This record gives sequence, structure tokens and C-alpha cells, in this order.
Amino acid sequence: MLLERAPFPAAESYLGRLPTELTVVRDLGANDIYGWAMARLGGGASGREPEADKEEGPDGCRAEDLKVNLIYPCTEAHVKKYRRQGVRSVSETADIYRRLVRPYMEKKREGGGIQWVVNIIEGKTEAEDVIYRTRLGEAGDEGFLLLPDLNWDRRTLEALHLLAIVERRDIWSLRDLKKKDISWLRQMRSKLLLATTAAYPSIEPDQLKLYVHYQPTYYHFHIHIVHVALEPGATQATGKAIGLESIIETLALMEGGEEAGMDRLCLHYTVGEASALWSEIFAPLKRSERAPR
Amino acid sequence: MLLERAPFPAAESYLGRLPTELTVVRDLGANDIYGWAMARLGGGASGREPEADKEEGPDGCRAEDLKVNLIYPCTEAHVKKYRRQGVRSVSETADIYRRLVRPYMEKKREGGGIQWVVNIIEGKTEAEDVIYRTRLGEAGDEGFLLLPDLNWDRRTLEALHLLAIVERRDIWSLRDLKKKDISWLRQMRSKLLLATTAAYPSIEPDQLKLYVHYQPTYYHFHIHIVHVALEPGATQATGKAIGLESIIETLALMEGGEEAGMDRLCLHYTVGEASALWSEIFAPLKRSERAPR
Repeated sequence: MLLERAPFPAAESYLGRLPTELTVVRDLGANDIYGWAMARLGGGASGREPEADKEEGPDGCRAEDLKVNLIYPCTEAHVKKYRRQGVRSVSETADIYRRLVRPYMEKKREGGGIQWVVNIIEGKTEAEDVIYRTRLGEAGDEGFLLLPDLNWDRRTLEALHLLAIVERRDIWSLRDLKKKDISWLRQMRSKLLLATTAAYPSIEPDQLKLYVHYQPTYYHFHIHIVHVALEPGATQATGKAIGLESIIETLALMEGGEEAGMDRLCLHYTVGEASALWSEIFAPLKRSERAPR
Repeated sequence: MLLERAPFPAAESYLGRLPTELTVVRDLGANDIYGWAMARLGGGASGREPEADKEEGPDGCRAEDLKVNLIYPCTEAHVKKYRRQGVRSVSETADIYRRLVRPYMEKKREGGGIQWVVNIIEGKTEAEDVIYRTRLGEAGDEGFLLLPDLNWDRRTLEALHLLAIVERRDIWSLRDLKKKDISWLRQMRSKLLLATTAAYPSIEPDQLKLYVHYQPTYYHFHIHIVHVALEPGATQATGKAIGLESIIETLALMEGGEEAGMDRLCLHYTVGEASALWSEIFAPLKRSERAPR
């Protein structure tokens, strides 16, 4: 017999009542506007456990059914990102990338979209969260730092999820990677595995998985490092995640000189219908393809 | 506020009691030894809902918390597959593939491991489950059939998960795909999108995602087709799933002639420590790498 948690019912009557029926069982911590806790349903508006359930003990059947992520105060962008939305598969050809997506990325970068990353790299913010870093400016192109991903509880090693942010600023996304970067990518891969296993000595290198997102959330090259035992969700899904080694192999076997790179591929990935990529680029493309000529 | 279902507690005392505390809320169906149902915890050994909970109605907070997959009778192989096991990242170089993995695949195929697929292709079994098929033997290399994946409830379109099994038997896995197969792969991609949207007219082609597994569970080429809204789990995870389009692009940009193909790549993927691939191939390799020379 295999048991899985079922999806939440989508009925308004259920969702409206949910927040008042939560009982927080264990606080996991907080970081800036983000907070995490384990909770369960039941216990009523008082937020206290009723006597009947207490008898079940800490490992009772209804203990810690839910993980709560609270973003407070949250912005319109948070709401947009997490609200249920339609998803579409899109094909970003080399031409669409060059004509439409690259300029879009440029606009995002210039609009201050990576200032927070620069602040972290320069040690102005989140310095206390950095798990490992090369000395600023001393490692050249191989400078990087490791941060915990916001979804990691920073405790469960089998759910380890780190972000490696590279110091160099000339790589906006995997689209900028070229054949000439293969040895840099291989170096980075070794260094990331070393730094992670040094920080968490009970983890072996072959218990780690490295991947990047396309599209990424922000246009400064970063690599996800997860424990292989982490329950894979959307962050690791095909159509969003691409294995770092897969990029290296694609480049290694690609025809062409040192400047040939990932900007030549047609990349297929999924985008939310609420995203600017969909509304500004791919939805108009879809409409124009369907329009009579 | 974001809510997620929490992992099940791993304590024996919890797990031992679980089966007796399940109340089946809704039966989803069965197929051969596989059965599915929605359930919730509570209700005691009688398996009936207590009055107090009934008042919450069908969308009450505790309705349908769980999906139950029952395999009965199950084999040792089922237990091995689903039992909690360690996972490892492995690097299958072109050389390891040729020397060790290819012969392993051959052994699996010869040991009757794909007889059930052949039976389905020839219409001897599961004919009633086939959603679409080209007429046996009439479509040449482009012959295929569509089956529901065992994890799909065959009802929720946003969780659609189909398997496309190709009729040709010469492709054991993505390793056999070569530059000369690019136009075949593109044809198959179009045909799969067409067949699926014809069978489920409310789905648009850009709401589908196509991928293959490496390693696959059986060595006869098959393609997974899922709705983009399906909650992505292990089946779609990087290190297991590779987008069909990504394979096509890798082949298209690969240097070499028509015979150049996916057998040249170093593929990184995850394997369970209970799998034969780990115990027979990658664990011995790891030991020999560590051994003093």
C-alpha cells in the first residue's frame, strides 16, 4: 500500500475557513519577510490543541500535516507568482531569444532586478546567511558563494537546497554559456561539490544534484544544489530545470568553434500565464501565428 | 500564506497504526493488481466516518487528505522499487555505457523484460486501455500507441499522464537515438501532440510536456506525455527526465555525421541504491575508483 498526500480541495468554502483552523505545531524560523512553521488542521480559532487530540502524542496521526510558508508583508509580485495560474509550454528559438528575450532580460537587469544579488556578492546584505564564499575579488571568474535556498528549512540534510551565485556578472543565464566556458563550468562543478561536502561532511558528492533554471527568476547566473533525496517538485522539473552536466555535455559535443554556445538551441520550457514572459512575448507570438495572413 | 502538505512522520508507531486509521472516501478504480482510492485519516478501525466529521460536509477540512495506491498481490520487485532507499548521482560515460550498461540492457531485454510491451503492441493485452493507436504494422517506424500511465486517475485532465509506446523495437533507450533520427523524432512529436489533443479536445498542444526517462524502467523506447499543470514529482525530475525537444536539439547541434548520436554523451542521472544498476555497475565502479592502485 502506497500513501500520498492528496491535493487540497479548491472549494472557496474550504479555503476561506482554512486559516482559522490551523494550529501551529512547530516554528521553523524566519528570514526577513519569510517565515516557516509546521502546522495541522483542527483546533479551532483558539489555535490551541483540543484535549482529545493531545492523547495521540507527538507522532499521532494528525501531527504536522502541513508546512506553512508565510510571506508578510507580501507584494503584488508575490501574489502573482504563487496564485494559481495556467501554464504553457513555449519554444524559444535562437531567433526569438535574440530578438525578444535577450532585450527583455536586459530590461529586467537594468530595472534593478539583480541589485539584491550584487548586494549579497559584495557582502552588503545577507552576509550572515552565506554558508561559504571565496574571498570577494580574489578568485576571479571562479569566485562564488553559497546561500540556503528559501525553501530549505536549513536543518534537514536530506532536503538540502543551496544556491551557488557566481561572482562574475557577464553570464545572465545559460544562454550565455559557450564552448569556451566548458572548462570553467567543470571547475565550478568541482568547486561546488567540494564546498558543499566541506560544509556538510555527512553528505557525499554523489548525493548531490546540480541544475540551473531556464527561465531563471533573475538574470545573474546561479546554480541549484540539492540533496538527491529531496522530494523533487517544480524546481527540478523538466521544462524548468536543466542539469549542469547536461549543459556541459551539450556544449562539448556541439559543432562549431569556441564562440558556439547555448544561444543556438531552441529551448522548450514552461511559463506561467501570469508571467511577463508570457504576456509580453509568447502570448503575442501565439496570437500572430494563428492570425490569418 | 502558502500551505503545503508535510511529509509523513517516519516513526514506526505512526506507520504501524496508519492502515487501521484510514477511511476510504472515494474509490478511483482498479486495473489488474493496481487499485486507487482517496482516503482520509480518522474514523477508527470500523472504517466509517464518525458523526462529528460528517458535519463538515464533502469539502470539510479533513476530506480526502490522502491518495491510496494499492498493489495486491505485490511482488518483491514492487517492494524494492517503493521501499525507502538511498539515491546516488552517477555519471554514465560513453565508455561505461558501451562496456557495462548496454550489455546490462541486453540481458534485461532477453530476460523477458519487455514481453509485456510486445503484448500490448500486438494487442494481446491491455487492448481496452489503449487511448489511441496507429493500425498495427501499417504506420512503419511511425507506429505507436497511447496508454494511460499507472499514476493517472484517468479522469483529471490537469493531471493527464500518458505513455506513448513506439511500435519499432530497435530503440532500447534514448542512447540509441542518432542524428539520422531527428526527422523521425520531430514527426513523432507532432503525431503525439495531435493524437493527445484529438483524444482530449479541451487540451491545447502547448499545455503538454513530452519527456523520456534515463534510465527508463524498461528498454523499449517510450515517451511520457503530461499536462503542464500536473504537479511535477520524481517522474519529471532532472536526473531522471529529459525533455524530448532537448534530445532533438542536442542531436541537431551535435558535430558528426548521421550516425553520431546520444551514445556519445556522458549522462548524469540518479539511481536507487536498491537497483541492479547501482549494485551491479555503479557501486563496483565507485569502489574500484577508491581502491588504492
